[in-house]
Amino acid sequence: MQNFNFKNATEIVFGKDQIASKLQAAVSQFGENVLLVYGGGSIKRSGLYDQIKELLADLNVVELAGIDPNPRVESVTAGQKLTKEHDIDVILAVGGGSVIDAAKVIASAKYYDGDAWDLVIKPSIRHEIQQLPVVDILTLAATGTEMNAGSVISNLSTKQKIGTYGPNTPAVSFLDPTLTYSVSTWQTAAGSFDIFSHLVEQYFDREPNNDVTASMIEGIMRTVIKWAPVAIEQPMNYDARANLMWASTMALNGLVDLGNVNGWSVHPMEHELSAYYDITHGAGLAILTPRWMEFCLNADTEAKFAAFGRNVWHLAGEDSQVAHDAIQATYNWIKELGLPTTLSGVDINEETNFEAMAEHAVSLKNLTQTAYVPLNSADVVDLYRKSMTTVGFE
Amino acid sequence: MQNFNFKNATEIVFGKDQIASKLQAAVSQFGENVLLVYGGGSIKRSGLYDQIKELLADLNVVELAGIDPNPRVESVTAGQKLTKEHDIDVILAVGGGSVIDAAKVIASAKYYDGDAWDLVIKPSIRHEIQQLPVVDILTLAATGTEMNAGSVISNLSTKQKIGTYGPNTPAVSFLDPTLTYSVSTWQTAAGSFDIFSHLVEQYFDREPNNDVTASMIEGIMRTVIKWAPVAIEQPMNYDARANLMWASTMALNGLVDLGNVNGWSVHPMEHELSAYYDITHGAGLAILTPRWMEFCLNADTEAKFAAFGRNVWHLAGEDSQVAHDAIQATYNWIKELGLPTTLSGVDINEETNFEAMAEHAVSLKNLTQTAYVPLNSADVVDLYRKSMTTVGFE
Repeated sequence: MQNFNFKNATEIVFGKDQIASKLQAAVSQFGENVLLVYGGGSIKRSGLYDQIKELLADLNVVELAGIDPNPRVESVTAGQKLTKEHDIDVILAVGGGSVIDAAKVIASAKYYDGDAWDLVIKPSIRHEIQQLPVVDILTLAATGTEMNAGSVISNLSTKQKIGTYGPNTPAVSFLDPTLTYSVSTWQTAAGSFDIFSHLVEQYFDREPNNDVTASMIEGIMRTVIKWAPVAIEQPMNYDARANLMWASTMALNGLVDLGNVNGWSVHPMEHELSAYYDITHGAGLAILTPRWMEFCLNADTEAKFAAFGRNVWHLAGEDSQVAHDAIQATYNWIKELGLPTTLSGVDINEETNFEAMAEHAVSLKNLTQTAYVPLNSADVVDLYRKSMTTVGFE
Repeated sequence: MQNFNFKNATEIVFGKDQIASKLQAAVSQFGENVLLVYGGGSIKRSGLYDQIKELLADLNVVELAGIDPNPRVESVTAGQKLTKEHDIDVILAVGGGSVIDAAKVIASAKYYDGDAWDLVIKPSIRHEIQQLPVVDILTLAATGTEMNAGSVISNLSTKQKIGTYGPNTPAVSFLDPTLTYSVSTWQTAAGSFDIFSHLVEQYFDREPNNDVTASMIEGIMRTVIKWAPVAIEQPMNYDARANLMWASTMALNGLVDLGNVNGWSVHPMEHELSAYYDITHGAGLAILTPRWMEFCLNADTEAKFAAFGRNVWHLAGEDSQVAHDAIQATYNWIKELGLPTTLSGVDINEETNFEAMAEHAVSLKNLTQTAYVPLNSADVVDLYRKSMTTVGFE
């Protein structure tokens, strides 16, 4: 097992009916001036917005609405201005990953006088300045941002979408599964696969004897496999929504990466798909993952894929067969979730950008060095091409 | 899944060669006056004591040595006196569970002028006063105290051994697996079973749909089952010691209890054995656990025991058979670890105290109400009696 340092001081308030009794104290402990950050109209339609305004009636609440699904630096700049003008004490972020991601960078921007984009591309600045505390109410189980320090911020003018890390995780995260009852079938499926993909990226690791971490991942994978179809069939099944929500948090709060060696592979390849074709992140991950697994399976990795088959998919038999069947089982589950299994399923029918995308993914994340099984540009192009058909899986 | 609140701000510094580079900063961030708390001579024999003294040479280090395996309130009182006399800023606890348990209560005692025992029996006092930060260096993988707020303190004059909770977990815990290379076969086996028992107590729970938690437990159980025999065979196997050490922390830092319903059963019954006969805690747990599992197995719980068999012991077949075989597998593993399987194995050959012990265990922890399967005094006496022979398992 590799050495590691770990600290995560986020307070989790999990379950139904907790917001009414605990939100006011969680926010007001940090002061009176609150910046309420949210996205579109969904929290107004659901009644959550009214509930929050009522609970915080005694505080000074300034609003920043309209955070986009891929949050833009312009939103951070707008938040920066508001935090300074109103001497904000605490940010309350209400929404999915995008809203919370933006709020984390705004939390730094109050204490920075330069261009907000600097904070994204030079995250070291954020580690030297103060931060506002962020309280959040999560409305989508997927990214894990509710208990980590990461944000992904886009800059349309420079055509960049950058993952960046601040010094702090959220101070308090409210995780109420009932707030995800209204998440659509498509977003539930894509969000569930996003969770599963986070687990896959951390599970397929070159550190051979990290069983606490690996076996916890296997357990959380089984949980997502079991409950995602239930949430899709029965959107208001509390246990399904609760297990997916807590799985999303546990999958990316740092705990299941401790003692690991190598970096992520599928996310960098998918980020290019999203950037070029604006597809749903979780759908892109679902298309690429089985092909990436096929690419990785070799004599060195067979035992790991066999463990994946036995402990996650309950398969039995010879390593070589179990390893192969585990990849097929992953593919079958993706189909069961109603997610696309080919690029044509998300309307990508031509290859013109594949080389540029592959080169960018490989160089940005140094995939020839850091990936579980090293990937060069030709490998990635090949993988994109194989993702255009169902050959090998149907 | 039940509602829960969770926050754990302990910083974990895990791995070999971390103490030399990080201990000084971890301690001195809190001030110059340090109370060094430890047990007997083992840290002197191992060289750890000298290393610590050298690393902290620029700080004012006051020592409190001689913390007993079952830490006594007199040690807390002695620490209370020293923290006040020397205006201590931070406690450095070096040892196993007992040393760290005592240090946590001493951390409160600096800010309390009454009898230190008050802090144990009325833990609410500790939640209203300040605490010293505790930094620790763990030398035994077992109790999980390194990342939770609990302590068990004994008072010989009142014949009480009480579990008590303060407001804070340790500020920084150094987990260096190489420090456990010298742990004896017996203590390694007993400590491993203590870890396993913490997982058992939290796994057998009446909340049926808490899969994130349950499946993480299954994974950590598999880890302990795999690596405990390796650590016993090869005391200096780094991966074995590392997996056991991190498993001990994860088993009792609160994470794998989230969303659960019921309380613990085997620990209360074992505490009576330890109190009356002064046996090793992990050995007592090992003797009682298979009998308790047999007691619990019924039509309502069969599915849970079958899941335990499939996901932890890799068994296959009908629920009824897998459930039964899982209990036998647990018993067999205990034997493989070299732990006793009967009370006579720890020299308990008469029953005179069983009724008083049973009544105390049941009433102290309200086992007729809070246990996974309710236990009354007659049930507990019966369980102690069955633990005197190998009938049913050999």
